[in-house]
This record gives sequence, C-alpha cells and structure tokens, in this order.
Amino acid sequence: MAGLDYARERRMSRSTTVQATVMQAPAIDQFEVLNDVLITVEDGVITAIAPAASFAGTVDHVVEPGSVLMPGLIDLHIHAPQWPQVGTGYDLPLEEWLFAYTFPLEAKYSDLSFAIDVWDSMVPRLLANGTTTAVYYGSVHGPATTALAEACVRHGQRAFVGRVAMDHPDGTPEWYRDATTEAGLEASAESIESINGLGSPLVAPIVTPRFIPACTDEMLTGLGQLAADTGTLVQTHCSESDWEHGYVLDRFGATDAEALDRFGLLQTSTVLAHAGHLTTNDLHRLAHRHSGVAHCPLSNVYFGNAVFAARRALDAGVNVGLGTDIAGGPSPSLFANAAQAVNASRLLEDGVDANIEAAQRGVAGSRIDALAGFWLATMGGAAVLNQPIGLLEVGRRFDAIEVTTERIGVWAEVDSPVRIFEKIVRMANEADISRVWVDGDVKRR
Amino acid sequence: MAGLDYARERRMSRSTTVQATVMQAPAIDQFEVLNDVLITVEDGVITAIAPAASFAGTVDHVVEPGSVLMPGLIDLHIHAPQWPQVGTGYDLPLEEWLFAYTFPLEAKYSDLSFAIDVWDSMVPRLLANGTTTAVYYGSVHGPATTALAEACVRHGQRAFVGRVAMDHPDGTPEWYRDATTEAGLEASAESIESINGLGSPLVAPIVTPRFIPACTDEMLTGLGQLAADTGTLVQTHCSESDWEHGYVLDRFGATDAEALDRFGLLQTSTVLAHAGHLTTNDLHRLAHRHSGVAHCPLSNVYFGNAVFAARRALDAGVNVGLGTDIAGGPSPSLFANAAQAVNASRLLEDGVDANIEAAQRGVAGSRIDALAGFWLATMGGAAVLNQPIGLLEVGRRFDAIEVTTERIGVWAEVDSPVRIFEKIVRMANEADISRVWVDGDVKRR
Repeated sequence: MAGLDYARERRMSRSTTVQATVMQAPAIDQFEVLNDVLITVEDGVITAIAPAASFAGTVDHVVEPGSVLMPGLIDLHIHAPQWPQVGTGYDLPLEEWLFAYTFPLEAKYSDLSFAIDVWDSMVPRLLANGTTTAVYYGSVHGPATTALAEACVRHGQRAFVGRVAMDHPDGTPEWYRDATTEAGLEASAESIESINGLGSPLVAPIVTPRFIPACTDEMLTGLGQLAADTGTLVQTHCSESDWEHGYVLDRFGATDAEALDRFGLLQTSTVLAHAGHLTTNDLHRLAHRHSGVAHCPLSNVYFGNAVFAARRALDAGVNVGLGTDIAGGPSPSLFANAAQAVNASRLLEDGVDANIEAAQRGVAGSRIDALAGFWLATMGGAAVLNQPIGLLEVGRRFDAIEVTTERIGVWAEVDSPVRIFEKIVRMANEADISRVWVDGDVKRR
Repeated sequence: MAGLDYARERRMSRSTTVQATVMQAPAIDQFEVLNDVLITVEDGVITAIAPAASFAGTVDHVVEPGSVLMPGLIDLHIHAPQWPQVGTGYDLPLEEWLFAYTFPLEAKYSDLSFAIDVWDSMVPRLLANGTTTAVYYGSVHGPATTALAEACVRHGQRAFVGRVAMDHPDGTPEWYRDATTEAGLEASAESIESINGLGSPLVAPIVTPRFIPACTDEMLTGLGQLAADTGTLVQTHCSESDWEHGYVLDRFGATDAEALDRFGLLQTSTVLAHAGHLTTNDLHRLAHRHSGVAHCPLSNVYFGNAVFAARRALDAGVNVGLGTDIAGGPSPSLFANAAQAVNASRLLEDGVDANIEAAQRGVAGSRIDALAGFWLATMGGAAVLNQPIGLLEVGRRFDAIEVTTERIGVWAEVDSPVRIFEKIVRMANEADISRVWVDGDVKRR
C-alpha cells in the first residue's frame, strides 16, 4: 500500500531500551497501563515489552516515577505555510479568510529562504508538542514543499508532505494558483518524485488537491490518476462548512464526498479534513472506501459552522483521527485538540441555546470522553493512515512522548491511573512533554 | 463598599519601576498598546506611566522586547478544595457529580494539614498561570477556609475567600454539611471575622451560600442578613444547569436570580457563577442590582447544558468576568477560559448540529472575539468585583504579568501588535508567563 517506506532503513542498526510506565488507548474505550516495563527498540521497531524487573541489561533511558510514556501524537491535517498566522484572523468566514489572510501568506513561500525559516521554527515546535507524525499541506510551490519534507527529515519528524494543487480561476486568486492545469499536475508529479527522492523512511509525499472549489475538473481527474499511478496517498478538504458543502452541491449536483469519489480521490487512507457536513450516505461511502476523516475541532469552531459528529462517524465505521488544521485552528497542540474534541461532542450532545427546551436542544448520544479524544490523537490517526504507529506494542514503530505530571498534579487522595491519564489529556502542554522519540530516536529532550 | 481594604497597607513604603510594552483592553472592543513605557508603582498603586525614553532614574525591571506586560488575570469562581481533581470526573451531570466525586473530596478538608498541602500547591500554581486575583469557594470547614486565606497572604495572591454554607438535608449528604442552620451561620460569621482578622490588604472574606439546592430558606435569609450586617460581598451559583434552574423554579416558583434577590443575596458585586439559564428579566434584575456573572465556559461544557450567552448579558448591562470553576472546569488557566469563551460564543452563534438548516442552527449576534475574551479575564472581572485592578493605568493596583512570545512565535511578515495579542490570548500558558506581580510585588519569576 501507499505511504512510508520502512524498507528504506538507515544502514546502521539502531537499538535503544526505555524503562517506563506506559499509558495508552488500544481501543477507543480501552485504557491500558503497562506498569514499569522495559521497551526494547531495534531499528525503530518495538521488539519487546517486558516487566522491567526481569531485565538485566543496560537501560538507555528511564522514565522516572511521576512521568509517563505515551504513544506519539498524530496530526492528520496541518497547513505548514500558515504557521506564522496561527492564533490570529478568526473574524472572517472560510471563503473570505482564504483571500484576505491565507492566500497572501502562502504566496510568500515562493521565497525559499523564508520557507526554510518557517519550517525550521515549526517542525521542532510541533515535535516539542508531541506531534511525532504530521500530515502536511505545503504551498503551491514545489521547492518550498520539498524543503518542508527536508526539514522533517532534518528534525526527525514522521510526515506526509503534499504540494498543494489549485488551478480554478474562481476559487483561487490570479497571484496564487497553478499557472495552468498541466503545469500544476506536472508540479505535483515532480513533488512526489522529489520527496521520494530524499530516500528517508520518515517522509512520504501525498497528493493534495486543495479542495474542490480551488480545482478544475481536469485537475481533480489528473490528481486522482496521479495518485493511482504512483501509489501515493491523497489528502483534501471535504464538506468543511455550509459554503463549501453547498458549493460542491451546486457545481456537481453531488456531495463533496461523492464528487471526490468520482475523481478517484477517495482511496484507502485518503485523509479528508473536517467533514462536518457529511450525509449518512457520505459516511457509508467513506467507510466503504476506507477513507478517513481528520477531525479538527478547534478549527471547526471558526470555520465549520457546526460540530463534526465524531461518534456518528465512528459508529458508521469511518476511520477518524485528529488534526490541528493550523492556522484554521489556533493551537499546535493535539492535546488541546483532543480536549476540544471532547468539548465539541458534549456541546453537540447537550446543545448550546438555553432558550430551546432541553430535550430538543442537542443530539443525544454524541459525547466522547477524554480516553476517546486521546485515542483519536493516536490510534485513530494511525488507523486513518494505516501506519504501524499510535500504540506502544511489539511490531509498531517507537514514536513516543514522555509526559511529566509535576505541574499537572497528582494527588494520592483521589487519583487513579485513569484519572492521571485524564489530567494529562486535558491539561498537558508543550512544557509538560519532557522527551520525544520518533522511530526510536530521541528528537526532543 | 465591601471588599478589600486598601487602608490596611503595609507600614513600609514599597516602590518599584517597570519598563515595558503593555498590551491590554480598557474596553471590550478597545485594544491598547503602550509602547516602551515606564510604570511607577508606590505601595501597590500605579502612580505614573510615561514614555521610558524620558525617564532618568533606576529601572527595577525591564520587560525585554519579545515579551509584553499585561494586567493580571482575575478568576471570579474557583472551588479551592476541588484542586486535586481538576481535569477529571466529567462523566456525570452536576447533581450526581457533587455526591459521587466532589462532596467526598471536600469532606477531606476537615483535615487541616491536607488542606494546607493543597493550598500550598494550588496558590503558587495559579499565580504562575497569571491569576493575580481569585474568588474562592473554600469548604464547609472554617479552619481550612481561613488557612486558604492565610495561604493567599503567604504567597501574595489577591483573593476573596468564602466558607461554604450548606445545610439542606436534600441537597447535601449527611457527612458533608453544616450540622444545623444556626451552626452554619455562626461558622460563616466566624470565618468573616477570622479572615478580616488576618489584617492583609490582599485578602477579604465573602459570604458563600453554596447554591440554593444546598441551603434551607433560613440559611439563605441568615446569609443575606450576615452580608448586609458586615458589608461583605456575596458569591453563589445561579441557574447553572437545567436541573439547578428547574429545582429553584419548583421550590420557589421563581427563577434562581429572583429567589436570591428575595433573600437579599443580590447585592452590588455579588458574584453569580455560570448563569447560563437566565431569563431576560433575570438579566435586568442583575443589571439593576449591579450583581455580576462569573462566566465559566470550560465548566459549562460539562455541567451547563447550554452556552452562557455572554454578548446578550453584556448588552443587557450585566457585569461579566471569567471563572475557571475548578474543578467543574478542567483548566487552571484564564487564558484557556478566555479562548473557550470565544469558542463557546462562536458555537452558540453558528449552532452545532449540521442537520439543522444554517439559518435556524444558531443564535445570530452571539460572537465575542479574543479581545473581548481577554477583557472578560481582566476588566470584566474587575468591574464585577468593583476593584481597582484589571488595567495598567494610574490609580489602579499594579497586578501584572509578563508574557514571553518566544514559543508563541512572532513573524514580522504578518504580525501586528493586535495579532501578537491575539496569539497570546489563544496560545499562552503557564510556561509563557515569565513574571507575575501582585500589588506591586513580584510573586513569580
């Protein structure tokens, strides 16, 4: 299948041992604690997990009591060039925000040195936030996008990196689009070759039509073909807002998901960002295609016009993970997005307008809990991408974070392991993440 | 008026000078930058703000470029004894959560040494989060509550501290309530004397009926009288959830606000927590009484059953500030609550259920922005309490925080001062707050 190529291992054997208490979520409703285990990692893969007490060799790193080890966090949707404006510009709806703030910023990435400055700020910051895997939108520029992939290799972050294809004269400005459909398709093909050419097992290309309003039919057809021809994953936006959902209905007489499917863009592990306005038929279509959703709950507050019904999508068999949607979302933290995924689900369940009778106010059965929020940020994302990450178990890659509870606070009077876990999910931020590993290597300490 | 007694100054004159660029919100829609000013503070009061370039004396502290000075943050509603369970236990509705998790925890504060351990953990952590003023619920216990006030004095946090009165046999468990109404009233009166007796200008008592379901009519009457007799502020909960709002309607045939008013508990600067289910008449009543609302947007997600319509309350002339509602709210950060106040207002405006037509989905005109969120956390809270804090201007107390933008990130290509300010409100946390002053003294660095 498409994706990261683990055959391209570094030549030198790399091994490490880590002693820790692990907290993680093998399933959306399953909390797992591995008390004081010794994890053995060979060439990035977990080869053994055993009680630490039974181990006689050298331990490379001990996660001290008071800290816990967790799987690394997976960001399924992040617009790298929007990094400088994260946290700002939430006064406009999507279709205006793009032209007023975002396209002008993205257009600056024709300047490769500016791009590299941003990438060298952003990638380490995301790693420090525990994001061990990121699925990136680059910009329309091939060189800046390849430089992003190079930055991921340099800083050691697992990543899918996509050059953004956008050629529709109505949905894009003259000063920020592919010159022609053909030029755009060629640039996307070159970007795939260029990123594959880096020869890193951590980084892979991804075919990236910005979204239907920004792409001509010819571009969408060509990109579907490109993905099929090259075995490359696909990402795009889908039914993000009333406007976007309505635009596609008007243009094709079909929903966004149905239209993408016609263009061959709904494949196994296609990442669809947002998807807040999917119909029941759309959900069945996604489940059938094994395409997944990047749920971006903080972004949706500002641009979604509704809450993505995560529980409903999961119940329909759709794979769902989390995305920060920087800069549509105002936080680089997947913990913050996991917490907001819970918040959003509760607000959907209860409703928001006190002037409506309680029984009619919300959508019963919508809630997810903090465990589910963490699962979305780890195993949920791993399932969408179909990658052996998201859980610390034998056979998966060792992407992990060490989280200290010193500031978060643990009280023997009330805290059980699951309560400590909940505190971490709801309150941990960059300052509480004391160490980060990707593919067995320490990336931040 | 009731409140903190600034006549009780320390005997030794204290003066300090701070050079900084200030960002703050004098009004809900007014962003103010004071570029490179010198702030002179005498005995806790700002006596001059002038261009730094014109100053020839010694500067005690320079807030370096890349950091900004802001008014300290005001937490209008926080349950101190719930500190050990912050971030956990959000699976139950309010009326069950109290009995299952919260009353058992609060009952432990009969142990004074446990109480002091918690206060000495909590108060410094809140200061580190930039909370320079806190309006605390203690527990039912007089000694633990006085110890909380002492901890605020010791660590230097401005605070109102209230012993919790609760005597209703239906709304409280036998093992955690005032033994009798009379005993409760006496304990509340003693707590006021005890806290006033500390002689600190930073700390004042506050009359604290837990909420109507936990109090008999006699208790509510007595506490209204106690507040009037002693000139002490009042805090309680009001119309927090469907259940609580409905309970009061059933018991009194009146809304929560109306019932509190009958008991003399709606006074100038009474702090009403939550208030998500107020009627239009209730809003007019609060505005008329100059009682204010502690908007607790993170807590409301779990216990409010609806979003507090902040814009509607403000438009009705009601004073509104922010509260963390620890542990109903899962974060000690007022920045996090300011951000969530914005999020909640946007979700109320747009609605949450995509299956409802866009025009019917939400409540138009509900949104507030990040500037308003910060204003709520500073000047809004100051207005509720009628205290000279919340803004760095001559005549107000110097409660302030230094925030570094190093991790948050500033990009000359896109950032203006107001964008930097927005980034801080949405993304700053404890680790970004590098120094905290209360009443002119450095409390954290």
